[in-house]
Amino acid sequence: MPERQRADARRNYARILTVAEQEVATHGAGASLEQIARIAGVGSATVRRHFPTRRALVEAVSQERIEALVARARELAGLGDSRKALLDWLSDVVAYCVAAQGLAAALTYEGTEPDSIYENSCTAALEDAGSPLLQRAVQDGAVDAGIGVADLITLAVGVVLATEHHSDREAAAERLFGLAAEGLSPRG
Amino acid sequence: MPERQRADARRNYARILTVAEQEVATHGAGASLEQIARIAGVGSATVRRHFPTRRALVEAVSQERIEALVARARELAGLGDSRKALLDWLSDVVAYCVAAQGLAAALTYEGTEPDSIYENSCTAALEDAGSPLLQRAVQDGAVDAGIGVADLITLAVGVVLATEHHSDREAAAERLFGLAAEGLSPRG
Repeated sequence: MPERQRADARRNYARILTVAEQEVATHGAGASLEQIARIAGVGSATVRRHFPTRRALVEAVSQERIEALVARARELAGLGDSRKALLDWLSDVVAYCVAAQGLAAALTYEGTEPDSIYENSCTAALEDAGSPLLQRAVQDGAVDAGIGVADLITLAVGVVLATEHHSDREAAAERLFGLAAEGLSPRG
Repeated sequence: MPERQRADARRNYARILTVAEQEVATHGAGASLEQIARIAGVGSATVRRHFPTRRALVEAVSQERIEALVARARELAGLGDSRKALLDWLSDVVAYCVAAQGLAAALTYEGTEPDSIYENSCTAALEDAGSPLLQRAVQDGAVDAGIGVADLITLAVGVVLATEHHSDREAAAERLFGLAAEGLSPRG
């Protein structure tokens, strides 16, 4: 393929993926491929070529968000208070899961036999990203050493799933995650 | 309605409810209403009349477990350490939700307007049951006053939903709930 055609194809895919992210965020995993094609201004066949199955669509959409969360963890790795950096990152995990209906569901496969390369790499990528943040907080004596990064991600996913029907989902999930991070005891 | 017709309707409902409980136990909140109708030997319209929404279905099949949890809260109300009594009850909420797939789904409707047909939702009944346990623990200075009973039930539901695919679901959910109750700070 000539360079110009390749550049066109990349732009096409980027536009389709952006629209797909919005549609999956709004309508969940059942988002309409026809609607995505219409909004992106391409034919249905083009969308189907990029996302031959519904699963491919949701995976592609989640992959972008996972990569953004991995990048965010890198940004926070050396910044200021280590407990705050960890909690800021987990707060982003919560917010991304609220925004992307398929992401929380994909992450419930944590701790299980990998059902597919994608689900495994999705959870593994997040765990790898969060580990240095947790390790630093544990070394600083700000987080208990018995807590694993998988625990924290599972908790983040849990507060998102449990507040699915709340009117302000992000606020409800963030508040609940904050409560879990602090525990039940009276605040000093 | 004549007495005999009423008796028939009651028997019909009891049979549909029994089938619905089995189907929700097996397939979760997404159980098929058509399948329930087929097994119960009634028309889909009859099932839809009893359960006009999916929420109505999961609440109806969860009713028995809710009643057991309400009774358990009453048992624990005056017993020993108030924080332990509260956490013991919440541990039972977690265990019941792990055992009954539909119950956790029913409880995600916390914080939303109840369907008009239900005056007493599962959530309201559980909140009423847990309130005295929480109040006693707050009065004893064992739990922060800013925490509501709905927060605790939603957290319990969250750890259950997030560990749905784990191999030992009850242990994973209980461990995660314990972590949320303690918070992230180093123990001791």
